[in-house]
Amino acid sequence: MNLTDVARFLRERDCFTILLHAYPDGDTIGSGYALCYALRKLGKKANVVCAHPIPRSYFFITDSYEPMEFTTQTVVAADVASPKLLGALAEQYPSVDLCIDHHGTNTHYAQHSFIDADAASNAENILAVIEAMDLPIDTYIATCIYTGISTDTGCFKHSNTTPRCHVVAAMLMEAGADVELINQYMFDTKSRERIAIEKSILDSLEFYADGKIAFITVTKAMRDAAGIAEGELEGITSIPRQVEGVAIGCTIRETDKGDYKVSVRSRSTINAADICALFGGGGHPCAAGCNFACNLTDLKQQLSAACLHALECEQ
Amino acid sequence: MNLTDVARFLRERDCFTILLHAYPDGDTIGSGYALCYALRKLGKKANVVCAHPIPRSYFFITDSYEPMEFTTQTVVAADVASPKLLGALAEQYPSVDLCIDHHGTNTHYAQHSFIDADAASNAENILAVIEAMDLPIDTYIATCIYTGISTDTGCFKHSNTTPRCHVVAAMLMEAGADVELINQYMFDTKSRERIAIEKSILDSLEFYADGKIAFITVTKAMRDAAGIAEGELEGITSIPRQVEGVAIGCTIRETDKGDYKVSVRSRSTINAADICALFGGGGHPCAAGCNFACNLTDLKQQLSAACLHALECEQ
Repeated sequence: MNLTDVARFLRERDCFTILLHAYPDGDTIGSGYALCYALRKLGKKANVVCAHPIPRSYFFITDSYEPMEFTTQTVVAADVASPKLLGALAEQYPSVDLCIDHHGTNTHYAQHSFIDADAASNAENILAVIEAMDLPIDTYIATCIYTGISTDTGCFKHSNTTPRCHVVAAMLMEAGADVELINQYMFDTKSRERIAIEKSILDSLEFYADGKIAFITVTKAMRDAAGIAEGELEGITSIPRQVEGVAIGCTIRETDKGDYKVSVRSRSTINAADICALFGGGGHPCAAGCNFACNLTDLKQQLSAACLHALECEQ
Repeated sequence: MNLTDVARFLRERDCFTILLHAYPDGDTIGSGYALCYALRKLGKKANVVCAHPIPRSYFFITDSYEPMEFTTQTVVAADVASPKLLGALAEQYPSVDLCIDHHGTNTHYAQHSFIDADAASNAENILAVIEAMDLPIDTYIATCIYTGISTDTGCFKHSNTTPRCHVVAAMLMEAGADVELINQYMFDTKSRERIAIEKSILDSLEFYADGKIAFITVTKAMRDAAGIAEGELEGITSIPRQVEGVAIGCTIRETDKGDYKVSVRSRSTINAADICALFGGGGHPCAAGCNFACNLTDLKQQLSAACLHALECEQ
């Protein structure tokens, strides 16, 4: 479907249930709530649903939202690359009418799809859809869309940031998005539990190869002491690579089951996916992952040897 | 002077020495080097000088720079609100021909001034000057200007961010600014000393009033243990206020002399300047400071009492 088709489809249908992906982030939340609000403005019935609760930090989006009562006629997925990512909702909504997404890896599971993988955030695609429906961009929509762009680009820092992100952000600010407030809650607010786990993560920092390799470790005991669940460690994989001089940063996380998930982040000339492939994992050249079932001492020995080897091959 | 006057002035003169402010930040560095490069492109002699060394993290700006040999004929100050901010250079350059700045507090010390206080960063003013000189914005200039905007707005997060910042950023990306690289070095790289001091700062966190007041303390002993000098604590005052639920965040820093500097950061309805005024200090409603000569225990007792009182007055 092109934008005109999507706009026509949405105008023709009613009683929308908009699905977000599980463990919702700012892009799926901003995408889903913006679309829901736009459809309601057209006089339609629309709700947003997610397998997990929306984090409290998104109050500026969710506070004015109330679910409506109706029987679903149209199912739309926002920022959901595959049905697996719906979590517990996958069974409840086996058939999706329309998917609006920006992942090149989208599995085309929906009956109709609008996928623009050039968009840094799916919120940009939702914005294009709302504009194609000839709806004005008011403060609420601007706030949702800005939240999606800002969170998916790390506040315009990551490599996926495009000139278009900035052009759109300028327009959204003019439309009333309060960027100071949004970014304060997205990037500059930490729970006391998060502060506690970050402190113990910094204590766990280990260096190899004259500081070119850094490991951090998060054990279940550390999480329990801080009051942090397995899924609440967003963003920590960037910590070891932030240390000046580090070329390979590894994050070792113990799962609730007692095995280990490893994330490897590398700078430019070192291939993180190659390192993880040695242990049956994979990923991108600069960001990859693998799993270990052995004990922590053996894991560190094997992983540091693999990282050292990657460093030597580079030189 | 308006932009046309500034462009004519720069085209007529030669042998420029461009002054940055002491303890240089991304905006004065980006401003000064962009202007120097633009003037050299016009075939003129130009150098940049600063009372302090340019931090190594700005290598992507300074690596291609070599000072030229000439006798100064024209002195230009970039992002310098008053001669005091020149530090050791103030005596050497008692007379400034042109000042390009964005501080509303500029003391108009230069013979000619171009001051646009609506600009979030002075780099935007330098960009306007370069465009008024009809010079194309190439990758180097784009990199310098982007660095100024990004650092002065906290990567588009702070309240001074304007739609214009985003519009300009889009253009600078098109002109070749590598925003991932720049922001990685500006925001996502920490020295091991910085990591060590942040860890001990987190250890120092103390809460009062059910977590609505947070204190962090940096003693000289903590700095010595981490290998951090008194002036190298940039950005730490935001740490206590980042904790969820904190309305008043105080940073207590012991100076080399053994007395204490206190920074108070508050949310919306609480006046930080009023709290600091009780101890002979002052500042803005949300960011203020004061000094203490007493011991740390007495300081904390007095400061926490003042913060509690401010909280009670609010309720």
